[in-house]
Amino acid sequence: MSTLTLINGQPASTISIADRGFAYGQGVFETIQVRCGRRLLWDAHLARLLDGCGRLAIPTDGVAEQLERDWSSLAVARDGVLKLTVTRGAGGRGYAVTEAMAPSRILRFTPAPVSTLQQGEPDSVRLRWCSTRLARQPLLAGIKHLNRLEQVLARAEWQDPAIREGLVCDTDGWVVEGTMSNLFFVRDGRLCTPDLSYCGVSGIIRNWILQAASAADVVCEVGHYRPPQVEQAAEIFICNSLIDILPVGRLGARSYPVGAVTRLMQQLLQQEYQLC
Amino acid sequence: MSTLTLINGQPASTISIADRGFAYGQGVFETIQVRCGRRLLWDAHLARLLDGCGRLAIPTDGVAEQLERDWSSLAVARDGVLKLTVTRGAGGRGYAVTEAMAPSRILRFTPAPVSTLQQGEPDSVRLRWCSTRLARQPLLAGIKHLNRLEQVLARAEWQDPAIREGLVCDTDGWVVEGTMSNLFFVRDGRLCTPDLSYCGVSGIIRNWILQAASAADVVCEVGHYRPPQVEQAAEIFICNSLIDILPVGRLGARSYPVGAVTRLMQQLLQQEYQLC
Repeated sequence: MSTLTLINGQPASTISIADRGFAYGQGVFETIQVRCGRRLLWDAHLARLLDGCGRLAIPTDGVAEQLERDWSSLAVARDGVLKLTVTRGAGGRGYAVTEAMAPSRILRFTPAPVSTLQQGEPDSVRLRWCSTRLARQPLLAGIKHLNRLEQVLARAEWQDPAIREGLVCDTDGWVVEGTMSNLFFVRDGRLCTPDLSYCGVSGIIRNWILQAASAADVVCEVGHYRPPQVEQAAEIFICNSLIDILPVGRLGARSYPVGAVTRLMQQLLQQEYQLC
Repeated sequence: MSTLTLINGQPASTISIADRGFAYGQGVFETIQVRCGRRLLWDAHLARLLDGCGRLAIPTDGVAEQLERDWSSLAVARDGVLKLTVTRGAGGRGYAVTEAMAPSRILRFTPAPVSTLQQGEPDSVRLRWCSTRLARQPLLAGIKHLNRLEQVLARAEWQDPAIREGLVCDTDGWVVEGTMSNLFFVRDGRLCTPDLSYCGVSGIIRNWILQAASAADVVCEVGHYRPPQVEQAAEIFICNSLIDILPVGRLGARSYPVGAVTRLMQQLLQQEYQLC
């Protein structure tokens, strides 16, 4: 079974160059882990997708139902990765939307055994700091939109495959996230993660962790942190919908143990997934 | 004659959804006025395109020559608009470029009599202020890249066709530009335009004006301005490669005459174009 792609409900692999997703990045996407044909944390992914559409002036009438029909027609019953993109659609010239045009929906399912999603991941991974800074733009903060040049530039800073992820700060020097993941660390017994009011992606796993940790009586703190505060942590981990929760063993010159809070959150997440 | 499109030298109108221009906006574009098959200010457009590619880690080996061949094969001998896009190309998954992939080239020529490019423009146009602010990101400042969500949001603030353009400030409140044009104004006998070190597009016509004005002994100033300083100007105009130079007759509640400096710059630009 190879990659399956549907564009607006039809098998296809290309999109109009007049699509506003291509011309301007007016679109949002989700990357979803699929186990036995089940989209993990689907409700949360859909909610973020629709919220992002609303903030980017992409009409959402009927989109959830169409996405459900698209997914059903793919008839996926195995493990893999679903990438879902919704754009403002194709038409017109210039930034103004001057004609009726339907949003574009792109579903792409790539089969992959769950065990290979974290394939080759050591027990804990190594991070670095990026020099690329994220601009502070509250209008786009939190949304997983298609304007991702800052992430491309940050990720291009290193080639060393031993480094799993790079951490980025904003232009005022506050720590935000990784290039493709959210950041957590444990400090003074509290589970901390950066505030995302000005930039960053409001990750599905990040938000799940904040809820689950509170429910498990782990004290959580969403705040503003400088790099030394992260480096002085007792535990560090990163997360996203494909890597789940990855313990960080090294950041720059310092080493970290895989701590009890990290292990607890990993266990709770796997329980949530109700492994099939 | 209808729109002509070439993608990587072949007639086509769609692009792979795996193209990094679509996935991340890793690409740059130019919008060029064509008269009698001649691309106006072509050298400046090409230079900006290649500079933008360099800053976005898009290889440029041979790209200029390929674009020249593409353009020749379109055999355009009339008036119109050429939109040129170069992206990092298709392949891979994730922000890192992990395999060899050639950049994608998209040329799209839309025939249009020169007289219709400014069709229906009154002698002077009306502007408004946008509430959308541009994030300050020096890594992307000046480049005409495909991450244009801020412009989409700003342009969506008004529907009134009587308003030709909206002016935007950055998140620190400094005036930057219009949603699709650069801004000039005359104040104390000086021709002023905002500094673009932190955001904004370094427009081809803007840069031409700065050179031509200096050569014509008009004192120029590139600076940091607040909205009231623009509003108190003696003359205001906007510019881009399609609208050329458009005098501003009204901004918010104030009216402006079409002044001598504006008329001079319009005349000099038309001379530069060497009307065919």
